[in-house]
Amino acid sequence: MKPLEGIKILDFTQFLAGPLSTLLLSDLGAEVIKLENPPLGDGTRYITTIINEKSSNYTTRNRGKKSVAMNLKDEKQRKLFLKMVKTADAVVENFKPGTLEKYGITYDILKEINPRIVFTSISGYGQTGPYRAHAAYDGAVQAEAGIMSITGDLDGTPVRCGAAIADTTAGLVACIGTLSALYDAQKTGVGRRVDVSMMDSIVAIMENLVSSYIASGGVPVPLGNRMWTASPFRDFVCKDGKSVYIGISTDSQFASFCEIVGHPEWTKDPRFLTNELRPKNFRELEPLVEEALLQIGSDTLCEEMEKRKLVYGRINNVAQVVDHPQIAARNMIVNAVYPDGTAFKVPGNPIKMSGLEDETDYSTSVMGADTFKVLANYADETALHEIYDQVLADCSAASKKLYNIDK
Amino acid sequence: MKPLEGIKILDFTQFLAGPLSTLLLSDLGAEVIKLENPPLGDGTRYITTIINEKSSNYTTRNRGKKSVAMNLKDEKQRKLFLKMVKTADAVVENFKPGTLEKYGITYDILKEINPRIVFTSISGYGQTGPYRAHAAYDGAVQAEAGIMSITGDLDGTPVRCGAAIADTTAGLVACIGTLSALYDAQKTGVGRRVDVSMMDSIVAIMENLVSSYIASGGVPVPLGNRMWTASPFRDFVCKDGKSVYIGISTDSQFASFCEIVGHPEWTKDPRFLTNELRPKNFRELEPLVEEALLQIGSDTLCEEMEKRKLVYGRINNVAQVVDHPQIAARNMIVNAVYPDGTAFKVPGNPIKMSGLEDETDYSTSVMGADTFKVLANYADETALHEIYDQVLADCSAASKKLYNIDK
Repeated sequence: MKPLEGIKILDFTQFLAGPLSTLLLSDLGAEVIKLENPPLGDGTRYITTIINEKSSNYTTRNRGKKSVAMNLKDEKQRKLFLKMVKTADAVVENFKPGTLEKYGITYDILKEINPRIVFTSISGYGQTGPYRAHAAYDGAVQAEAGIMSITGDLDGTPVRCGAAIADTTAGLVACIGTLSALYDAQKTGVGRRVDVSMMDSIVAIMENLVSSYIASGGVPVPLGNRMWTASPFRDFVCKDGKSVYIGISTDSQFASFCEIVGHPEWTKDPRFLTNELRPKNFRELEPLVEEALLQIGSDTLCEEMEKRKLVYGRINNVAQVVDHPQIAARNMIVNAVYPDGTAFKVPGNPIKMSGLEDETDYSTSVMGADTFKVLANYADETALHEIYDQVLADCSAASKKLYNIDK
Repeated sequence: MKPLEGIKILDFTQFLAGPLSTLLLSDLGAEVIKLENPPLGDGTRYITTIINEKSSNYTTRNRGKKSVAMNLKDEKQRKLFLKMVKTADAVVENFKPGTLEKYGITYDILKEINPRIVFTSISGYGQTGPYRAHAAYDGAVQAEAGIMSITGDLDGTPVRCGAAIADTTAGLVACIGTLSALYDAQKTGVGRRVDVSMMDSIVAIMENLVSSYIASGGVPVPLGNRMWTASPFRDFVCKDGKSVYIGISTDSQFASFCEIVGHPEWTKDPRFLTNELRPKNFRELEPLVEEALLQIGSDTLCEEMEKRKLVYGRINNVAQVVDHPQIAARNMIVNAVYPDGTAFKVPGNPIKMSGLEDETDYSTSVMGADTFKVLANYADETALHEIYDQVLADCSAASKKLYNIDK
């Protein structure tokens, strides 16, 4: 049995941070019911890459979840939502702070209906503080929270991490908050209000860069690909033009490395004697390493590093990662399939666990597809048809129109 | 009461991924007992920035935890560890796969002692697969897992994200795995073996970059600071030389933005008409925006963006983040204090939750400081003195020696 089997999540999230957060809950066995605003639903349904009117973007983050149309402006739909809260374990949302409040959905109201409910919000800057109402996307928070300022070439301008790490980190941190509250609610019968922001999450993962600045007064700058606590510790180009990332962080590793490149004399060089000295003198050490590695093929270098249990990595592109033998062995690329047969290959569950088989095929839902099936538990069929027949017809028409504009 | 109050974690982690994972468990109320190999303990105790023989690096990730000396090569200490397992909820470790096995510590043995135990391992590539035994540091995995290949200047060479996101992401993912297993164990009385890798975790957060490549065949490359699905969406230099990150992702946002910069005619330009066209024609749009923003001060731009609820971020450095009003309002910089009064300011708990007050002062332990207090529950005082008096004296002497080398 999956560890979260039996948990029901009402998922008001869209775009990235929220959907990633509930994706992991789904991978771990929770029933995740995605509540999407008709007619269009989650905006990622319409962005790259589109196949058969389905989006890789949406599919990646929402495989395995159910989709129910839910327009909170419609009082009948809103009441159905409140009924669902009674039997749910958590509500997760990542609207701009204050959005759900406008529809009368607050923690106070939810816990009145179900004291056990966990109510998690993910936002750019949090539910409190002067930036509370500040709109946010990943890039803007990577800028505002300082992580761009430490990324980039040595002495260069700030660079955004190519993955949306402000979104994804906040999604993971919120998942941790939700799970800890669910653990507690299982024991005490009382839920929690959880509030996670992208900015707080980035500060948490910048961690010692923050503490060390405060302790030393030295403002961190982009350092290229090197670490600031060890050297040589970056990527180097080899004889065949391919780059290898080298991580030498102890004196004995440095001695082994000097052996490989045929320069045992470096270990006696007063500038390079210790792990404290080498990063201080990296501007002198790195050119020597650059020159030495231009004499060695990348395959040979990796073999020799492997033999000595030294740390290295090849600079793989996404195509090479998809074909990576370790990724295959770990079942990290899976199928997400729609009822019409349209299938995407997307990343799988990164949490491997005893009693939790790696799944390789996930069903995925088009906008509102599970509305009747899910809501049958909360209203009779006639009432549902009255509320939803037109709504779902509109969903279908609107998305058809939008996909055709794309073409 | 904190949500994880009553949970006891035996923490065999060191460096970053593992300690960050258990730090969040500690922030949420778990008792985290860090088991450190004497005499030196976690290697981060000796790296930057050092004040009074304490490290900001160590303190950042281990505030609020207890420190117990535990040398598994010593049979008496190893037996004490196995005794601790009886009353613990989880064991977390991030050694190279196979390390604990050498000391007879496997999930089979742990669950024999305590069926409820959760045993979580974090590693570079996972406990299974051909790369299982591969040594790993953050930079090497950022290279191998492909995230470097999508980070950097447009058409430039791969760049490492300046924060250790392979470590931190794996730490967060492992925390999710541990919590879901703890939830399950609370219900069923049976624990789980959890296996999380840095590489799988990076693939999970690259998410649609992976899926979209597979669906389209286009290998993602570094795009500078821009998003590939919208434009203008990157940082731009303003009149005063300061940069602002702009995120324009809908047609109505674009219209508002064109108003601010005084170019309403752009909204009629056939190249820039829709959110699908603008990123395709970013090489023509961006130079126009660059020129226009050189006429506007960054403060004015931010004010005008704010007024129209558009998304922007200032490019803050770490010093500006530490002084950020939102970070102050969210209590994200806290004190970590040692018994001798040495204090560091470090990032606080990123998970805000009802019933969980933000703490502002955390106690932190020197190597082995809690050995007697913690182990008093598992052995009588005489036995502990026999085992540990010399061990702890060695710890103190060895660390003194190492800190003095640093000077």
